[in-house]
Amino acid sequence: MSHSFTILKSCPATEARAGLLSTPHGTVPTPVFLPVGSQGAVKTLTPDDLKMIGATIILGNAYHLYLRPGTEVVEKVGGLHRLMSWGGPILTDSGGYQIFSLVSLRRVTDEGVTFRSHIDGSEHFFTPELVIQLQEKLGADIIMPLDECPPYSNNQNLILEAMRRTHHWAERSLRNHHREGQALYGIVQGGTLVELRRESACFLTSLGFPGYSIGGLSLGEPKEAMLAVLEETVACLPKDKPRYLMGVGSPEDIFEGVARGVDMFDSALPTRTARNGSLFTMLGRHNVQNVCYKDMTGPIDNRCDCYTCHNFSAAYLHHLFKSRELLAYRLATIHNLHFIISLTERIRKAILEGTFATMKQSFLGSYQTTNEETRIAQKKKWLESRVGLDSPTSPVQ
Amino acid sequence: MSHSFTILKSCPATEARAGLLSTPHGTVPTPVFLPVGSQGAVKTLTPDDLKMIGATIILGNAYHLYLRPGTEVVEKVGGLHRLMSWGGPILTDSGGYQIFSLVSLRRVTDEGVTFRSHIDGSEHFFTPELVIQLQEKLGADIIMPLDECPPYSNNQNLILEAMRRTHHWAERSLRNHHREGQALYGIVQGGTLVELRRESACFLTSLGFPGYSIGGLSLGEPKEAMLAVLEETVACLPKDKPRYLMGVGSPEDIFEGVARGVDMFDSALPTRTARNGSLFTMLGRHNVQNVCYKDMTGPIDNRCDCYTCHNFSAAYLHHLFKSRELLAYRLATIHNLHFIISLTERIRKAILEGTFATMKQSFLGSYQTTNEETRIAQKKKWLESRVGLDSPTSPVQ
Repeated sequence: MSHSFTILKSCPATEARAGLLSTPHGTVPTPVFLPVGSQGAVKTLTPDDLKMIGATIILGNAYHLYLRPGTEVVEKVGGLHRLMSWGGPILTDSGGYQIFSLVSLRRVTDEGVTFRSHIDGSEHFFTPELVIQLQEKLGADIIMPLDECPPYSNNQNLILEAMRRTHHWAERSLRNHHREGQALYGIVQGGTLVELRRESACFLTSLGFPGYSIGGLSLGEPKEAMLAVLEETVACLPKDKPRYLMGVGSPEDIFEGVARGVDMFDSALPTRTARNGSLFTMLGRHNVQNVCYKDMTGPIDNRCDCYTCHNFSAAYLHHLFKSRELLAYRLATIHNLHFIISLTERIRKAILEGTFATMKQSFLGSYQTTNEETRIAQKKKWLESRVGLDSPTSPVQ
Repeated sequence: MSHSFTILKSCPATEARAGLLSTPHGTVPTPVFLPVGSQGAVKTLTPDDLKMIGATIILGNAYHLYLRPGTEVVEKVGGLHRLMSWGGPILTDSGGYQIFSLVSLRRVTDEGVTFRSHIDGSEHFFTPELVIQLQEKLGADIIMPLDECPPYSNNQNLILEAMRRTHHWAERSLRNHHREGQALYGIVQGGTLVELRRESACFLTSLGFPGYSIGGLSLGEPKEAMLAVLEETVACLPKDKPRYLMGVGSPEDIFEGVARGVDMFDSALPTRTARNGSLFTMLGRHNVQNVCYKDMTGPIDNRCDCYTCHNFSAAYLHHLFKSRELLAYRLATIHNLHFIISLTERIRKAILEGTFATMKQSFLGSYQTTNEETRIAQKKKWLESRVGLDSPTSPVQ
């Protein structure tokens, strides 16, 4: 089966649409949230857990897998699907974002980017061609070209240069991509500058990709700026192709993204916050380590039908976190991913039934989002902590 | 259903026997290995994982659960079975062993033992009566009395005094145990002194327990001494009651214990070593972090039908350990517990078929055990490291 994208229904009030994305490893109903498995594993979960949670497509990362276990090892084992024992669709990110955020030492030229591994400091050189080759070996269903993803700033020259380079790299990637049954998307850049975003979207559209990613957002910019840029970008992309908003996946952002015509989301937020004990409910995120959960006999969320809420009390989760039992991180991950994935499924159902706008209003009316100032401060802290570390949590034992 | 123990078949060549141990939460085929879930969780695993692995009964610990989450919390949630969402039989250890090995500050008198929590240093006082009360609240199927478990030594007075105190405590425990459907076992002490072990076994037998535990072994003494003591102890216990060898559970020790008439084993060894990457095979334990596994496309053990070996290559496990992915610890735990539990099942089948002695010889002929000197050194190091810590491994992330 080859790639196709079918829109089943569009929202009359917003840009939202419900569709079906076909890939060689199965068909994915959209809008969809992709759990993040950068190193070849969605942290703490087996493929069976992912199926139980309702995941239909997952994310890998070429930068991480190239460094460890190494592309050759993945190829020898039979590809990324076989390595992870995941039979469903996989999308791999190129690692552009990682190289420009995770790595402290790098030199970028038009030819490519030289960087030092965040693991052992060894030097590596990525060109767009090499990154395509790596991903052809990994064998994901959908892959991304190498892009230059500058940090959030208002330096117009810097953003312009990164965008132009990303465009040249996109052309080279397209020319050098040969693997059958694998779809290469284009990545829109341009920071928070609406004019550049439009230019980027138009240019990439002219190259004719089977799907379009929107990169370089959710990097600490104000939420309003992100949504404005998103709106303008999507307006310049072809209606009949899937749109993937990279690295965005809080409940409120999924609603706002869907309303602006986005079909695919990924984010480490649900899994990362889960490992800190911060769990989604319809009213907002609550930390199960708080003392109020110490002897709560009911589940974290009475209305949730995930494995964790179905089987365990909030008191038990509280205990597991306080005791640093490894099971804590898994049960919390199951809950948060189930929350995001089933929320996305309900969004899809609402689009199909023509009730998305009402549903969005109702959800955002009761869901307590993180205060904007706190959110930006947390994001900044997290981005800074990432250099040399894949995750800020260090559960002992 | 109340408690009973039926011996189905005895080995003609050794003291091995295959039986059925009935408890209010189900019947357990013996010999049996109990996975260790001291804090109310078998590290990294859900109850569903445990069922898949073939666990029929698991172990909890009154000392740990009293400190965290607290006996009142467990009771409020509906007992330990409900807390863990485990519907099968549970055995709780009293915590005697933990108080005398894990805790650095303690004062013991005939009345009871005062100790400081290894978590926050708070002071607590355990009497045999309180420990029975705690375990009545936890609600396990089988419980243990408070015992004094001195470290391995040849100090005869110290061992004698601990044994006599353990006996008095056993009498007081028996008098104060009232919960219906809960079986209280006696614990034999006496160090490596055969005469004391005989005295202890005879005394406890005279009190008439529904089962007998053998404590205070595998504490760093030479293996020969342990096996000699075990043999003499079992000879003084009633044939028709279950015998539980506490804290012992390496493959070779299970064979030797079964051959000497033991029915029940528990040990943190399979799960603890798993989290260090050390995995059981029929030829011995191998560490999957070794470079030879880096690109091994087959499973850790070709003959193993566990979830891990069925789905994942050794190369993937190697990668997960090197990347400190939390999934590593779970997949390794599944493999090691499955190995020990299915080995125990095969031992039982061999007893039923009258081929246990041959099977034992064949297994021990090819299984490479850890060198005796290394084993004792490792044990000593581990016992020392336990003060203030529940586990020596600290997987980051």
